[in-house]
Amino acid sequence: MHDFVIAPTTGGVTAPAGFRSAALHCGIKAKAGALDLTVLAADGNASAAGIFTTNLAQAAPVIVSRRHLERSRGVARAIVVNSGCANACTGAQGMTDADRMAAEVADTLGCSPEHVLVASTGVIGVNLRMEKVVSGIQAALPALARGNGSETARAIMTTDPFPKECAVTVQTGRGTFVVGGTAKGSGMIEPNMATMLGFLTTDAAVPPAVLQRALRESARDTFNAITVDGDGSTNDSLFAMASGASGVMIDDESYPALLEALLAVSRDLALGIVRGGEGATKLIAINVHDARSRDEARQVARTIANSPLVKTAVHGADPNWGRIVAAAGRSGVMFDINRATVHVGGILLFENGLPHDDNAPRAGEYLKKAEVQVDVNLGTGGAAGATIWTCDLSAEYVRINGEYRT
Amino acid sequence: MHDFVIAPTTGGVTAPAGFRSAALHCGIKAKAGALDLTVLAADGNASAAGIFTTNLAQAAPVIVSRRHLERSRGVARAIVVNSGCANACTGAQGMTDADRMAAEVADTLGCSPEHVLVASTGVIGVNLRMEKVVSGIQAALPALARGNGSETARAIMTTDPFPKECAVTVQTGRGTFVVGGTAKGSGMIEPNMATMLGFLTTDAAVPPAVLQRALRESARDTFNAITVDGDGSTNDSLFAMASGASGVMIDDESYPALLEALLAVSRDLALGIVRGGEGATKLIAINVHDARSRDEARQVARTIANSPLVKTAVHGADPNWGRIVAAAGRSGVMFDINRATVHVGGILLFENGLPHDDNAPRAGEYLKKAEVQVDVNLGTGGAAGATIWTCDLSAEYVRINGEYRT
Repeated sequence: MHDFVIAPTTGGVTAPAGFRSAALHCGIKAKAGALDLTVLAADGNASAAGIFTTNLAQAAPVIVSRRHLERSRGVARAIVVNSGCANACTGAQGMTDADRMAAEVADTLGCSPEHVLVASTGVIGVNLRMEKVVSGIQAALPALARGNGSETARAIMTTDPFPKECAVTVQTGRGTFVVGGTAKGSGMIEPNMATMLGFLTTDAAVPPAVLQRALRESARDTFNAITVDGDGSTNDSLFAMASGASGVMIDDESYPALLEALLAVSRDLALGIVRGGEGATKLIAINVHDARSRDEARQVARTIANSPLVKTAVHGADPNWGRIVAAAGRSGVMFDINRATVHVGGILLFENGLPHDDNAPRAGEYLKKAEVQVDVNLGTGGAAGATIWTCDLSAEYVRINGEYRT
Repeated sequence: MHDFVIAPTTGGVTAPAGFRSAALHCGIKAKAGALDLTVLAADGNASAAGIFTTNLAQAAPVIVSRRHLERSRGVARAIVVNSGCANACTGAQGMTDADRMAAEVADTLGCSPEHVLVASTGVIGVNLRMEKVVSGIQAALPALARGNGSETARAIMTTDPFPKECAVTVQTGRGTFVVGGTAKGSGMIEPNMATMLGFLTTDAAVPPAVLQRALRESARDTFNAITVDGDGSTNDSLFAMASGASGVMIDDESYPALLEALLAVSRDLALGIVRGGEGATKLIAINVHDARSRDEARQVARTIANSPLVKTAVHGADPNWGRIVAAAGRSGVMFDINRATVHVGGILLFENGLPHDDNAPRAGEYLKKAEVQVDVNLGTGGAAGATIWTCDLSAEYVRINGEYRT
C-alpha cells in the first residue's frame, strides 16, 4: 500500500505553487492572434531536468538547453518556448538565436542565461524572425501570472487538434504537493510542425539528480512509450522543474509519490498526443506479456505499433490477427509462435498456432471503439511485459502529410 | 571488362531450356477462370536453391520446402504453387496438406517428394481445400509445356496489379545460356494476400552450392533491397532451379556471368513488385553513399525508405529534405549531419547542416515523375553504399488495407 493519494486538479503547468506563465502572439505564426510564444517561470531558482531527442539531427534549442542544464547542474529559472518555427537545420545563426532567446529572458528576470531553457517547434530549415521573438519575450515577462497554464498549453501547439494539459494533487503524510504539465505533438516530426514537447512542474522540493531520475523513469512508460508514425524529431524535448514551494521534501521515502504523480500527469499528456495524432481516429494500446525482459516486450510492442498493416486494419475495425502475429514474428525477438496468443479487447483470436475465427465477428465489433486493447502473450515463461500506445493509420494521415506542401 | 553479353528475351520462367509449366483455375480463388495453381517442372533433376522468410511465423509450405532442399542437398524436379490460400497458421493439417501437394506432383512425375518444392500465397489461417488442389495438380501435369511462362506468372498473383516476368540470354565464350523468372508481391504480408514469391530458372549447369550462393548474392541487392511497408510475410520464398540443358558450365570463371544475369532478372522482378505495391504511384530509389560499411548504408536507406513521412512527402511531390534528414538521423548509424548532403534527382537540397531552399521548386517538379532518385551522402569518408527501393504511401494504400475486411 502507498501512503499517498493522487487526485486530479485544474491549472495545468501553473497548478503547482511557485510557477507563473504568459503566452501571446508575437507574429511567428501567420494567423492573427494565434499564440506562438510562451514563458514559464519559477519565482526563484528551481531544480530542473531534461530529456532530449536521440536523433543525430538536433535543433539549436536542444543543444542550448542541454548545455544549460549541464552547466547549471540542474537548476533553472524559466523556459521560453516558441511555436511556428523549429529553429532546426539553421546553422550558426540558429545557435545565436537560441542563445539570444535565453539571454533576453535572463536579462529581464535577473538570472544567468544558463538558468533559462529554450524549446522551439514548427517548420525546420527556416530562421527565427528574432525582432518578433525578442519583442514577444519583452511583452510576455511583465504578464507572468498564475492561471495562465491554458494559454501556455495553446501557445505550444502546431498541428495539434487540441491543447494538452493535466495536473494532480498528491497528499502524503508530510503534506500535499502538486504536479502539473502540458505537452504538444501530433506526428513525430516536422514539417508539418509536429515535434513533441513536454513541460512538467511541481512544487515539491526535489534535488536535481532525483528530479532527473524521476523524469527518466516516468517518461519510459509514458512519453517514450507512444508512437504515431515511428518518426522522431529534431526538437523533441521534455523538461521538469521543481519549485519546492509546497515545502514537501522528496527523499527515498516520498520518491514513489513523486514518481506516481509524474507518471499520472505524463500518461495523460502522452495519450493526448496519440489521441490527437495526425489523422488518428483510435487510441490503440499494444500490451505484450510473458516476455523474457521488458526490453524484448517493448521491442515486440513497438514493432506491432508501427506496422502500417496493423494500423490500417484497426482503422478498418478488421480483427486481423495475422498481421499482428506477422509483425511480432519479424520484431527480432525470439519466441515460439505456437505458444503465443493474441487477444483484442479480451477476445481470443490466435492460440496454438491457429486462429479462432468464431470470435472474429465479436472482435470486429469491439474494434469499432475509439480506444482498443491488443494483448499479445509471447508464452516464453518470462514475467516481463510492456505497453506501447499508438493510433490508427487513416487516409487523413496521408492527406495531412502528402497533400500539404512545405 | 566482362567477357559476356546479357540481352533481354521473352518467355519468362520457361525461357531457359529444360523447363515446362502449366497453370489453371482449380477453384481456390472464387472468381471463375482466375488462375490459382501452377506447376513448374524441369525435364529431369535440376540443381535447386532457396531463400525463405526470416519471420518466426512460417507457413507450412516454407517449412516443407526448406526440409526438401536440405534432404535433397539442393536437387529438385518441380515447384508447385497455389494462390488464394497461404496455408499459413493452419497447424498440423497445413503440414499434411503441403506434404500432399509435393507427393501428388512427385507421383505423376515419378520422382521423390523431396524433389518437389511447394509455395502458397493468399489468405492466412484458412486450410486448403485439398480436393480442388489435388485435381488441379492432376490436370496440370499433362499440360506442362514450354511457352506457358506467362500463365505461371498470372497464376501466382493475388493483389498484384500486373504479372511480373523477365528473361535474359547470356552469351559467353563457352556458349549461351538463359535465365528467366517470375515473381509476385504487392504489400509485404497477408492478408490481403501479399506474400512475396519468386521463381528463377536457368539452363546453365550450376552445382547446387554455387546456385545457392548466386541466389543469395543476387537477392541481397534486389529482392532483399525492396520494401513496400516494412512488413514481412509468413510465406516469402525465392527459388532458383538450374537444368544444365544449355551445356554451359558455371565455374569460378563463368560465375560472374550467372550472377549478373540473376541480378538483371531479379532487379526487374523486384522493381516490378515495388511498382505494383499496394496503392503505389511512384518508384523511389533511396541511394546512400559514403557510409562506413554496406550494412550501415543499407540501415540508413531502409529507415528512410520505411518512413511514412518520407513516403507521403514523395507522394505529394514535396521536396521535404527535413524528413529525409530526420529519418537518417534516427537510423542508429552514427554520422555528422553537418557533413551529410541530400539530393533528389541530382538537385541539392541540404548541405553543411542547412537547406538549399532556392532548389526546392525545381526538386518539387522533379518529384512529380513516376520514378525518383533520392541520394543521401553520409560524409563519413567511407566508400560504402547501398540502394533500397520503395514506393510512395497513398490514401489508396490505407483504403486497400483498412477498408478491406478479411
